[in-house]
Amino acid sequence: MSTKKENREEVPSEEREYHSPSSGIFFKLKKLLFKAKSDYQKIEVIENEYFGRVLLLDDLVQTSERDEFFYHEMLVHPALVAHPSSQNILVIGGGDGGALKEILRYPIKYACLVEIDPKVIDVSKEYFPWLSPSLEDERTELIIADGIEFIEKADKKFDIVFVDSSDPTGPSASLHERDFYEKLKKCLNLEGIVVSQAGSPFYHLESIKKKDAFLKKLFKNVCFYTSPVPTYPGGSWCFVFLSDEVQPLKIKRDPPRGLKYFNLDIHKAAFSLPNFLKDLGSN
Amino acid sequence: MSTKKENREEVPSEEREYHSPSSGIFFKLKKLLFKAKSDYQKIEVIENEYFGRVLLLDDLVQTSERDEFFYHEMLVHPALVAHPSSQNILVIGGGDGGALKEILRYPIKYACLVEIDPKVIDVSKEYFPWLSPSLEDERTELIIADGIEFIEKADKKFDIVFVDSSDPTGPSASLHERDFYEKLKKCLNLEGIVVSQAGSPFYHLESIKKKDAFLKKLFKNVCFYTSPVPTYPGGSWCFVFLSDEVQPLKIKRDPPRGLKYFNLDIHKAAFSLPNFLKDLGSN
Repeated sequence: MSTKKENREEVPSEEREYHSPSSGIFFKLKKLLFKAKSDYQKIEVIENEYFGRVLLLDDLVQTSERDEFFYHEMLVHPALVAHPSSQNILVIGGGDGGALKEILRYPIKYACLVEIDPKVIDVSKEYFPWLSPSLEDERTELIIADGIEFIEKADKKFDIVFVDSSDPTGPSASLHERDFYEKLKKCLNLEGIVVSQAGSPFYHLESIKKKDAFLKKLFKNVCFYTSPVPTYPGGSWCFVFLSDEVQPLKIKRDPPRGLKYFNLDIHKAAFSLPNFLKDLGSN
Repeated sequence: MSTKKENREEVPSEEREYHSPSSGIFFKLKKLLFKAKSDYQKIEVIENEYFGRVLLLDDLVQTSERDEFFYHEMLVHPALVAHPSSQNILVIGGGDGGALKEILRYPIKYACLVEIDPKVIDVSKEYFPWLSPSLEDERTELIIADGIEFIEKADKKFDIVFVDSSDPTGPSASLHERDFYEKLKKCLNLEGIVVSQAGSPFYHLESIKKKDAFLKKLFKNVCFYTSPVPTYPGGSWCFVFLSDEVQPLKIKRDPPRGLKYFNLDIHKAAFSLPNFLKDLGSN
């Protein structure tokens, strides 16, 4: 990907993610395992003493070996315990396979993963082998496509759609807009649920407010929930649960055994919002 | 505190806190407002573009202008809404005045703050004037003393004791040991509660487990709870609620109005623990 000279210049002693222009998180590099620019974004895999392998896209941490379970469990399990009979699942983004891994713990029929960047899938298969077997499960179909183009043409309907996108910069920008959610709704079965990552409640409150305002015009139930994610900005993250028919706190089944984070108490707790997030409702 | 030459050498362009030997948080310095070594620790106040003023003791962030409400509200309000009639409160540590500010929102009679390092109080009065008026409230008594020596000699009993200490390095080390909690219990009224900060559930799990084991021998109710704190390691923090008589989820009164984080839903939610923390009980 680069000449020797470039390589020498580009290998830093640490990787840092800016959470604001003046603050953020740093990781000392034990090793730079992979660095390339795909058609869509810069992809890096570093090895850090504490976090193990860390995947960064355009300098933003996507997942780490040590803390991936926080984000992936909390993205996936709330919808799966609330849906009465989910069989067909769509994941938009999530090319690392971590969300799929959690989904496949349930006896579902079919999981379709639509990832825009095939390089992310290749990298995950090589460097995150504890996540990526889900990408080759017999119930999984992998489709390399732009999420919004896929749902415009989709001839299937889904019980649950997970939007496991990166932040609203780079190739995921359109996945944070109203137009996308309008189209997404047409791919949902009657009791369908959409769950989307919605950014940091601390750093991205304005974007959450904007999303809340347009989502309320599209879905009857627009329920934000939060979870700690140590390597994400501010250490906690916001998700949104969208449905016309399904209410998140009416539990329909137990989660699988062996989870590190999620349980039914955590499920209920996650939907309790602090005052500064609760006030969204008044918009 | 230092010669001109030392100052020139010591003013860095950023402050960083290591959360593990190979990762952590960084803050670009807009300005170094204060730096000194007291009899107990290194004290710094920096100005950061995003977080505003940040207080560090021995290179560990204690509080920031922008996110102080997470920690101080979640340290204080759970005990105050659960106690039936708290009138006399003790704070050990907490020289910045942030915990006291939350306590004084309630109609209590008397709050005693025992801080080992008078320099922390002076610095807070000068650089954190939105926290420190609580230190001069007519219900407040300030005592400069070692927390453990104070409770050994105390002739008063308290309804609630908050242990607002720094981490188990430096001058607060003894406030994390069994001996301290044994002595503390003797200062409690019958329906007394102790709430103590207990470290990061992500980074300090071993220390939490150790604390859980000895606390269960001292108190009937040993209830850990968590809250996001963006500038603390991993972005979420653990507290422990200790009492023989009072159960945290039996709410006795409403919290005051005007809080940014805490409400009664959050109170209940905070005591729901993820699987990896719940398993402490088996020790």
